[in-house]
Amino acid sequence: MADLKILGISGSLRKASFNTAALRTCAELMPAGMTMTYARLDDIPIFNQDVFDAGLPESAKRFRAEVAAADGLLIASPEYNFSLSAALKNAIDWGSRPPNQVFQDKPIAIFSASQGPMGGARVQYDLRRILGQIWGHVLPRPEVFIGNAPSKFDAHGKLTDETTRKFLSDLLVGFKAWIVRMQVKK
Amino acid sequence: MADLKILGISGSLRKASFNTAALRTCAELMPAGMTMTYARLDDIPIFNQDVFDAGLPESAKRFRAEVAAADGLLIASPEYNFSLSAALKNAIDWGSRPPNQVFQDKPIAIFSASQGPMGGARVQYDLRRILGQIWGHVLPRPEVFIGNAPSKFDAHGKLTDETTRKFLSDLLVGFKAWIVRMQVKK
Amino acid sequence: MADLKILGISGSLRKASFNTAALRTCAELMPAGMTMTYARLDDIPIFNQDVFDAGLPESAKRFRAEVAAADGLLIASPEYNFSLSAALKNAIDWGSRPPNQVFQDKPIAIFSASQGPMGGARVQYDLRRILGQIWGHVLPRPEVFIGNAPSKFDAHGKLTDETTRKFLSDLLVGFKAWIVRMQVKK
Amino acid sequence: MADLKILGISGSLRKASFNTAALRTCAELMPAGMTMTYARLDDIPIFNQDVFDAGLPESAKRFRAEVAAADGLLIASPEYNFSLSAALKNAIDWGSRPPNQVFQDKPIAIFSASQGPMGGARVQYDLRRILGQIWGHVLPRPEVFIGNAPSKFDAHGKLTDETTRKFLSDLLVGFKAWIVRMQVKK
Repeated sequence: MADLKILGISGSLRKASFNTAALRTCAELMPAGMTMTYARLDDIPIFNQDVFDAGLPESAKRFRAEVAAADGLLIASPEYNFSLSAALKNAIDWGSRPPNQVFQDKPIAIFSASQGPMGGARVQYDLRRILGQIWGHVLPRPEVFIGNAPSKFDAHGKLTDETTRKFLSDLLVGFKAWIVRMQVKK
Repeated sequence: MADLKILGISGSLRKASFNTAALRTCAELMPAGMTMTYARLDDIPIFNQDVFDAGLPESAKRFRAEVAAADGLLIASPEYNFSLSAALKNAIDWGSRPPNQVFQDKPIAIFSASQGPMGGARVQYDLRRILGQIWGHVLPRPEVFIGNAPSKFDAHGKLTDETTRKFLSDLLVGFKAWIVRMQVKK
Repeated sequence: MADLKILGISGSLRKASFNTAALRTCAELMPAGMTMTYARLDDIPIFNQDVFDAGLPESAKRFRAEVAAADGLLIASPEYNFSLSAALKNAIDWGSRPPNQVFQDKPIAIFSASQGPMGGARVQYDLRRILGQIWGHVLPRPEVFIGNAPSKFDAHGKLTDETTRKFLSDLLVGFKAWIVRMQVKK
Repeated sequence: MADLKILGISGSLRKASFNTAALRTCAELMPAGMTMTYARLDDIPIFNQDVFDAGLPESAKRFRAEVAAADGLLIASPEYNFSLSAALKNAIDWGSRPPNQVFQDKPIAIFSASQGPMGGARVQYDLRRILGQIWGHVLPRPEVFIGNAPSKFDAHGKLTDETTRKFLSDLLVGFKAWIVRMQVKK
């Protein structure tokens, strides 16, 4: 049986992003039978329906194709002003426009990391609602909030906190079962 | 007494946007003692903390200065996937970063227009929460939702629906009183 | 094969409630293979952890047993002050307390009716979030909002609006497939 | 000048509630010129429009009168299933029904306590939205989340954590200024 293809999406464009670093850690922690590639968001222009109608930019086309081809999406979301980063919302908006709304029926797992203590407690509910309404299937639990991120990663962006590694590991195990459960039987 | 300076912000980048059209209509409907200029969002790059730290792009600097100089903000918000457009969230994120968080203590009025019947019933609550948390003071009422927008504007983007014009007019009257009420006495 | 057992829950205690009336209409519209009974919420006291710890009131026990025994929940939710009625939130709180959190892994469909034009556009997102977080599986679509309810029911509480009947009918068809999809294979 | 009259409202009915205990602490921490009394919610029946129309229960009448007479409301809110307790939502629903919607133009400060680490990070945004939409004026900041409450109170319900006492104290100072700012000049 072929591996489940996971597309990793980080909502932060910052090089030293804790969300991106945690996403890379997930690649190490994945259960057998899953492989991850990464989406790139930084070259997608801000959504403008006029541009969409005139013809999709290559970057948006690429993102849509990557989402469409994935068996599941793993989203690491920073929290900016209590909600999604513009980068992440933008990618979702490009992907969700018909035709071929690419998030339709897609299994999704999310987590968030923040420098403050909350770990993204606010953004996750916006993200769940948005993804749910475009008919993505977001894994309900476990919820993973990586608060006080600077204390949990080393200088090279390696996630050193064992408790957090365990949380992410559990998330991925749950995600694998969720993907299998949500796959439409053909 | 000098006019109250209103900065009009449309969250849609589309040329024929109903939100932008309704915002222009507001300029006609303003009570005496208020004048409006318009912010431009389409040239602001997607927020990236690395870029912010390296030095603000001119477009972001301009936007921050315009917000800082305004006595009040009037935001016309489309609803994309049940929440803010990336363009609007992006502008808010650039403006809200310290130093000189420019939304602090700023009176704000919002409305939304949509092609569907809801008129943005979902986005307004996200927008209120986000703006409230960065300590903007969002006028609580009236709530203005312009649903079925295509039927309410003519081919030139003129708002022809009298009921909607009255709603916007009431919003602006309320906004003027709100700005005066919320101004910090010096 | 045994019928799927649906528990109908109306969040309104009002006798002539449009939500309750629409729920009764659903019983007529159900696809073959589903049968509905109704939960009673009006005799459940307001949740108090001290009372819970001292021993569940009979009414709360009954509600929990009904939810546990159902294959799916169909919730008709009024919107009070932009969110859930106290009656509905109360029932959820009694049901969600361990042990035997009864909503766990339960397929759920929701709709809302209101006298105003919005049809409950705000409450549904709160309800989805709350139910999702206690790991209920809420059918993502179709979304059914019954706005301007007084014009759609006759004096006997019969839903006469054909478009709305079709919406509810589609919801129930989707719900049946969703229940089958979400059932944990044993 | 007369003291500002604050009505303290705890959303928890539990005797040993940390929210109620923190609210009592606020009475000790109040700046000069404010005095607090407490609302009682446990005898208010679950809202039912039929009952409202037939004549307000005495308990609901009392609550509405207390809110109407207060210069400001201080609400301590537990988080049940990621949102308001039924007890608190119920009180708000009774109070917000016309005529004499009693929350109209009322300055309000909120905080939340929880046994878990989040301190009510989710409920506060629902509460702000609900109160804002009935045109209460909710103090935007500081936000006070009392997480891990059991470690911060002694066996008699006394708040012993100095950091938390300082947070509440700052909240009250901000609240006093907010009440003065928001009072409608006559």
